[in-house]
Amino acid sequence: MKISMERATLLRAVAQAQSVVERRNTIPILANVLIEAEGDTVTFRATDLDIEVLDRAEAMVEKAGGTTVSAVTLHEIVRKLPDGAQVALSEEPGSGRLTVSAGRSMFNLATLPKEDFPVMASSEYTSNFSCKAQVLRRLFDKSKFAISTEETRYYLNGVYMHVSDSDGAKVLRCVATDGHRLARIDAPLPDNAADMPGVIVPRKTVGELRKLLDEDDMDIAVSVSETKIRFATHNITLTSKVIDGTFPDYTRVIPQGNTRKLEVDASEFAKAVDRVATVSSERSRAVKLALDEDRLVLSVNAPDSGAAEEELAVAYGDERLEIGFNAKYLLEIASQVDRENAVFLFNSSGDPTLMREGDDTSAVYVVMPMRV
Amino acid sequence: MKISMERATLLRAVAQAQSVVERRNTIPILANVLIEAEGDTVTFRATDLDIEVLDRAEAMVEKAGGTTVSAVTLHEIVRKLPDGAQVALSEEPGSGRLTVSAGRSMFNLATLPKEDFPVMASSEYTSNFSCKAQVLRRLFDKSKFAISTEETRYYLNGVYMHVSDSDGAKVLRCVATDGHRLARIDAPLPDNAADMPGVIVPRKTVGELRKLLDEDDMDIAVSVSETKIRFATHNITLTSKVIDGTFPDYTRVIPQGNTRKLEVDASEFAKAVDRVATVSSERSRAVKLALDEDRLVLSVNAPDSGAAEEELAVAYGDERLEIGFNAKYLLEIASQVDRENAVFLFNSSGDPTLMREGDDTSAVYVVMPMRV
Repeated sequence: MKISMERATLLRAVAQAQSVVERRNTIPILANVLIEAEGDTVTFRATDLDIEVLDRAEAMVEKAGGTTVSAVTLHEIVRKLPDGAQVALSEEPGSGRLTVSAGRSMFNLATLPKEDFPVMASSEYTSNFSCKAQVLRRLFDKSKFAISTEETRYYLNGVYMHVSDSDGAKVLRCVATDGHRLARIDAPLPDNAADMPGVIVPRKTVGELRKLLDEDDMDIAVSVSETKIRFATHNITLTSKVIDGTFPDYTRVIPQGNTRKLEVDASEFAKAVDRVATVSSERSRAVKLALDEDRLVLSVNAPDSGAAEEELAVAYGDERLEIGFNAKYLLEIASQVDRENAVFLFNSSGDPTLMREGDDTSAVYVVMPMRV
Repeated sequence: MKISMERATLLRAVAQAQSVVERRNTIPILANVLIEAEGDTVTFRATDLDIEVLDRAEAMVEKAGGTTVSAVTLHEIVRKLPDGAQVALSEEPGSGRLTVSAGRSMFNLATLPKEDFPVMASSEYTSNFSCKAQVLRRLFDKSKFAISTEETRYYLNGVYMHVSDSDGAKVLRCVATDGHRLARIDAPLPDNAADMPGVIVPRKTVGELRKLLDEDDMDIAVSVSETKIRFATHNITLTSKVIDGTFPDYTRVIPQGNTRKLEVDASEFAKAVDRVATVSSERSRAVKLALDEDRLVLSVNAPDSGAAEEELAVAYGDERLEIGFNAKYLLEIASQVDRENAVFLFNSSGDPTLMREGDDTSAVYVVMPMRV
C-alpha cells in the first residue's frame, strides 16, 4: 500500500475512527484502525465489536492495499503535523511496518495483518429511510440526558427509537428514562420509516452519532434491523448493535391527568434552582417548590450547612402546592427548554410531574418527586 | 455584623480566599473564611495553617463585627448570583447563622465563632522591599516547572529565592530543581533586598502568589524572615511559611565547561520533539538528538510501537554528538523560551546540558541526559 493525502482530510477520518476504539481492551487488533486503499479512495475502519465506524476519504493511491495500525498513535501523529502538510502512508508487504512521512518527519509504526481485523457482519435491514441531521440531533440531544447508567437495567442504557402515534399522526419517537426522569421526543415520521422495528440505541452509539449531525441540512441514511442500526452520510458509515432487551412500557409513566399548570421562564428557573441548591449537601440535593397564586418559592434546607430560599414571579392559578425534586433532575430538564417558557403540570406532591416547552407536545419530560 | 457590597467585589475577595482553603481537612474551621467588618472595609481571611490570604474590600458597613462561614459555599453562592447584584451579609449575634441576601434570593449559612479562627502569628521581617509584579512573575513562572514533587526531598518542593551574584552584579535569584532538571532565573536586585535571607517558597504559595501578579506594573511589597514570606498588594496580603530546610548547593550542578553550541528555533524544536515522542511508550519517553554540521536529527525508537525521526535545520559547528533526553523535560524547557532562539551547550552524551535563551544568561536551564 502506498497513498498520499492532505493532513486535514486524514485527521478528520482518523479522529472519527480513534474515538470508537476502546482505550483498554484485551484484543490487540481492536486498538487498530484498518486502512484500505483502492482506486482513489481510502477507507478507515475502527470497531469495539459493538460499534463500527467506516470513514471514506479521497487520496492519491499509488499502490492499492491495506493494513492496520494503532488508531490512537496515528491520530496523535497526524494531529501534531503542521497544517497543510501532505502525508504519505506506505507499507512494504511483509515488513509489518507502516511508514508515515510528511516534510522532514518520518514515523514507523507496527502493524497487524488486515486479515485479522474483525469486520462487522453486514445484516439485512428491514427498514431504510432518510432523515435530516437536525431532526436526528434534536431527537437524541433532548433525550440522552435521561439514559440510565445502571448496568443491571441494561435495557435502559440507551435511547428507545421507535414509531408511535401522537394526536393521530405517526411520529418517529425517542424515549429515555432511568426510572427517576423520562424524556419523550417526537419528530414527524420520515417517508419509508413506518415499518421500522423499535430499537434501543446504546449510549456510546448516541455519542458517536452526534459527531455526524453537525450540518443541519445533511441527509442521514438510516437503516434499521432487529439487531442493528446504521447511520450513513456521504463519507461516514456508523453501524451499531442495538441493545438486546425490551424497553419497558413508558406510556404508563407519563401522567395524563395533571392539571395544575405552572409557567415559568426556563432560564430564570434553572438559575434559581442552581443557586438554592448550593447550600445542600451532595447526597440529597432536594429542592422544595412552594406554589401559590403567581408565585413560586424555591427552597433548600440542609441542617448541616444552611438554608436557601428564592422567589420567582410565575404564572400559576391553582391551589397552593408544595413539592420536592432532586435539584440535578430539575436543572437537566430545565436546560432542555430552548425556545419558550417551561410549562410544568403537577398533580399532587407524591405524583410524577410533567414538563414541556410552551404548548409544544413534541418534547415531554417526566420527573419523579422527592419527599422533602 | 451587617454589611452590603457589590457582587463583583465580593466575588473577587472570596475567590482568592477559597482557593487557599484545603478541600479535605480535619479541622472544621479551616474550611471557613473569616469575615470582619469595620469602618468602610471588610476583610476576608482564609488559611491552611501554612498559607494565609487576607483580602480587603470596600463595603457599606451598617454594623461592625465578624464571623466565619464556609469559604467554598459562600464562593459558590456569590458566583451564581446575577452580575451587578448588591449582596447583603448579616449575622445576628448568637444566632450561629449568616444571612446572605441579594434580590429575591436569601441564604442562611452555618457559622463558627470568629474567636476560634487561627490567625497566623505576625513575625518580625528582616527584609522589606518592593518589586514590580512582572519581575516576580518572570522569576516564578520560569522556575516553577522544575519544582520536585517528591515528598521525601521536601527541601526541593519549592522555589529557592535568594540574593546572589551574576557577572559581578547582585541579583534576586529563583532556583528550582528536582534532580533531573534545574531552572535558575535572575532579576536585578530590588532596593533594600540585599539583606534578604534565602528562603524556599513552597509550591502552593507559588501558585497562590501567581494570582496577585497579573498587572505588570503593580508594586508588590515583599517581606522576608527566616521562617516566613509575605507578598502584599493594595488589597491582598499573602503570608506563607517557608520550607524549613537547606536548599542544596545548586551551583555545582550548573556546567561551566560546556562548549558545543547548538542554536535552534525553540518553537520548531518543541513541536518536533512532541511529534517524535508520540510513538514512544509512556514510561521511557527518551528522545535522541544526533548533531552534525548544522543539522539536528531527533529520533525515538520504541520496539513495541514503532520509530520516529525528524530533521531540523540548526546552527551547530562542533563535532558529531549523540545524546538522549526525557522528552517531557525537553518540551518543558523549550517552552520557557519566549523571545529568542534556544541555545543548548553540550559537553558529552553523559554530562548535564545547559540551555538558555539566546545570549541571555539571566535564565539558565540544566537538564540531565538519558542513556538511549
